[in-house]
Amino acid sequence: MKKLNITALGGGTGLSTLLRGLKKFDYNLTAIVNVSDDGGSSGKIRNELGVLPPGDIRNCLTALSEEESLMSKLFQYRFPQKGSLAGHSFGNLFLTAMSAISGGFDNAIASCAQVLAIRGRVLPVTLSNVVIEAELEDGRQIVGESRVSKSDKKINKIILFPSEPPAAPKVLKVLKESDIIIFGPGSLYTSVIVNFLVDGVIGAIKSSNAYKIYIANIMTQPGETNGYTLFDHIEAVEKHSYKGIIDCVLANSAPIPKKLLSRYKKSGAQTVKIDKIQIKNIVKGNLFSDNLYARHDGDKLAKAVNTIIRKR
Amino acid sequence: MKKLNITALGGGTGLSTLLRGLKKFDYNLTAIVNVSDDGGSSGKIRNELGVLPPGDIRNCLTALSEEESLMSKLFQYRFPQKGSLAGHSFGNLFLTAMSAISGGFDNAIASCAQVLAIRGRVLPVTLSNVVIEAELEDGRQIVGESRVSKSDKKINKIILFPSEPPAAPKVLKVLKESDIIIFGPGSLYTSVIVNFLVDGVIGAIKSSNAYKIYIANIMTQPGETNGYTLFDHIEAVEKHSYKGIIDCVLANSAPIPKKLLSRYKKSGAQTVKIDKIQIKNIVKGNLFSDNLYARHDGDKLAKAVNTIIRKR
Repeated sequence: MKKLNITALGGGTGLSTLLRGLKKFDYNLTAIVNVSDDGGSSGKIRNELGVLPPGDIRNCLTALSEEESLMSKLFQYRFPQKGSLAGHSFGNLFLTAMSAISGGFDNAIASCAQVLAIRGRVLPVTLSNVVIEAELEDGRQIVGESRVSKSDKKINKIILFPSEPPAAPKVLKVLKESDIIIFGPGSLYTSVIVNFLVDGVIGAIKSSNAYKIYIANIMTQPGETNGYTLFDHIEAVEKHSYKGIIDCVLANSAPIPKKLLSRYKKSGAQTVKIDKIQIKNIVKGNLFSDNLYARHDGDKLAKAVNTIIRKR
Repeated sequence: MKKLNITALGGGTGLSTLLRGLKKFDYNLTAIVNVSDDGGSSGKIRNELGVLPPGDIRNCLTALSEEESLMSKLFQYRFPQKGSLAGHSFGNLFLTAMSAISGGFDNAIASCAQVLAIRGRVLPVTLSNVVIEAELEDGRQIVGESRVSKSDKKINKIILFPSEPPAAPKVLKVLKESDIIIFGPGSLYTSVIVNFLVDGVIGAIKSSNAYKIYIANIMTQPGETNGYTLFDHIEAVEKHSYKGIIDCVLANSAPIPKKLLSRYKKSGAQTVKIDKIQIKNIVKGNLFSDNLYARHDGDKLAKAVNTIIRKR
């Protein structure tokens, strides 16, 4: 029997969590990853070396690896401060060496996946050096992913600069040939929607026969989705793509512990209210990871996705 | 059906060649690798860092990898001379980082195999820092692998210093549980026999139910097996282990091009004469790789081994 082609579109922690769960099933799995990150170490490398920000891509490779904790330790390992390798992280040296022998950062990612024991593929959505810009509801424009994710007003629309960058090789083909496409979980604008702004992505999704699942976030994200309900999330997705792009919504229905909620409340975050939406297929379940954060559990997510697939 | 456990014992180019061929079949493959190398870059690292010589182990990992040419390029990649990473080879950085996070070089090798896409396992035969000593037929003793392999007299016996070092974890278990054990091809004393000098190795081989194949070298090696016939090779193996350790001999019968032979002759090497031996099962065939050296072809070797296995 042919393996199902599952493509997960996103970025950040949410995408890694999903991959960590899905890799345990026998799918032909591809992660298409947003590359507009401009904060932290990734942003620094991006500025200094002029390459794509490696952070999210590295995290996806790690999440897909057969020995995740070991791979994670290896990638994060920094050489001792003494000596010529002072403070370099192994993960960056790995990508640097791979870039050199593969002729560029894009090929390097594919090459990494070939030499590492990982269960899937990771593709940057574009190879262009792109910046996110947001138009806020008061008309102001803000520039850069780290600033967009800290907007003080509701985001009206996001665009990429340069606009409509070309998709990276294989991205459109993979999307078109997908049996299942999954959006999220993750930052609504800066991890999920941003991928729709790459040239051809929406068309490829539309022309595919894929069943498209949107995984709703558990919590709102102050500065990006302040006070958003599920309806608001989906409205934003459709506004940046097309009506009907989502066939099925997967949402958490397990209660979040009060202690956790009150801690989140201090930063302005609350649970995403599951209000009335126009999509018929909504699957609710316990997707919550019982830990220090109100985040998804990778295994629960993957099981839920698996159930949705089997029922079709 | 249970996969056959195949264990290849050796070192150097010969072992890599064999692994390169065998990895294409669906075996449970383990390479047990000699670690007494003291020459070249490996010897240097060994002296400077006090770790096991990484060369042969790296070569085995590369030979077993799914994308060998890429892995090979990556391991051999040296960072540019300018800057803080000047001249370091990626392979050594990889093993260094792995050693740091895995708590030692021995674990590092196993860890490498876990994160890399390779088809088999690589084990150093011992974790001890060992030196080969040879007793020559004129009574002199010479010390160190690189010198032993350039002896000016026939080698009578080799020993390790410290003698009978403990086997590395898993080595004895893997040998005992093998269905097939393969010795060679490779330098008779410094790649093959040296492994028998590790404590417990001979006992583990003897107590196993494995069918044991010796792959004869194509050429003699001046300084190590000058003028040796097949009989001499087997005599040396048995002298350092026990009579009957070899169930089957696999030898090349394809003629070596004259041009190649005359080049080898200049350095004192000649084809290993297949004379009368006391082992009944001798399989001859074209095992020769048609290239610049009179070496084995990995695919031909693996096919021959495969045929021997199927006939049993």
